[in-house]
Amino acid sequence: MEQRLTIISLGVSDLTISSKFYESNFGWERSAASNDDIRFYQLNGILFSLYPVSKLGEDAGISIPADKGYRPLTIAHNTRSEKEVDDLITDLRIKGVKIVKEPQKVFWGGYSSYVADPDGFLWEIAFNPFLPMDERGNTLQHE
Amino acid sequence: MEQRLTIISLGVSDLTISSKFYESNFGWERSAASNDDIRFYQLNGILFSLYPVSKLGEDAGISIPADKGYRPLTIAHNTRSEKEVDDLITDLRIKGVKIVKEPQKVFWGGYSSYVADPDGFLWEIAFNPFLPMDERGNTLQHE
Repeated sequence: MEQRLTIISLGVSDLTISSKFYESNFGWERSAASNDDIRFYQLNGILFSLYPVSKLGEDAGISIPADKGYRPLTIAHNTRSEKEVDDLITDLRIKGVKIVKEPQKVFWGGYSSYVADPDGFLWEIAFNPFLPMDERGNTLQHE
Repeated sequence: MEQRLTIISLGVSDLTISSKFYESNFGWERSAASNDDIRFYQLNGILFSLYPVSKLGEDAGISIPADKGYRPLTIAHNTRSEKEVDDLITDLRIKGVKIVKEPQKVFWGGYSSYVADPDGFLWEIAFNPFLPMDERGNTLQHE
């Protein structure tokens, strides 16, 4: 199995609210393949999608508990400087986004903060001086 | 905020069991930056990591419920043919991986199956004839 993935789909409780979060706050643009049932966002080599959690379970033929609260995963958006972390958090705060952890130096040598989306999916906004990225933001081999 | 992400970290209940799942069953190779606390896997332009769920919460300064069961998200690994889906599922079944949904034609025109990792994170193994990928498996603009 090749060492790659294609799509990350978050199961959300309200598609309209979640779409608005990613489009108004993150400033992301949905792709034209989006419709009333699912929203797609073209990222760096992968797709990100928002899908109602009930349909997500239906698609797999299982029942997924629609519990509230933080989800057991984080998605990181790495910046190219500490200042960029500060600027993003300042902007997201103004837009009313829940700041879970204020930007701060962390033990592994980086500078990190966390925000939450409407369902409690955690996004880490961080600068990691040890993680090389190319100009498009793709991570390079992490030795 | 640029339309991209850098790292997906799954909060897992047992790092050894989860690492073994991705390394033995998926055949993925951890990167040298991995240590006893966290495992990294270099994917296509992004990093995938496994981290104990308690530490994941600690890092964000919150408590994440360590409930069992399916997680409200799916990660898709798209193949280049229906046969490749069948072959992967056959191989994963032999290795003892839980097949949540057998490969089958689905309403959106693709061919899809689901497997679960030890914590209930769902992976969709699918062929989507409408989703163009380059030779490295990166998705191209999805119109």
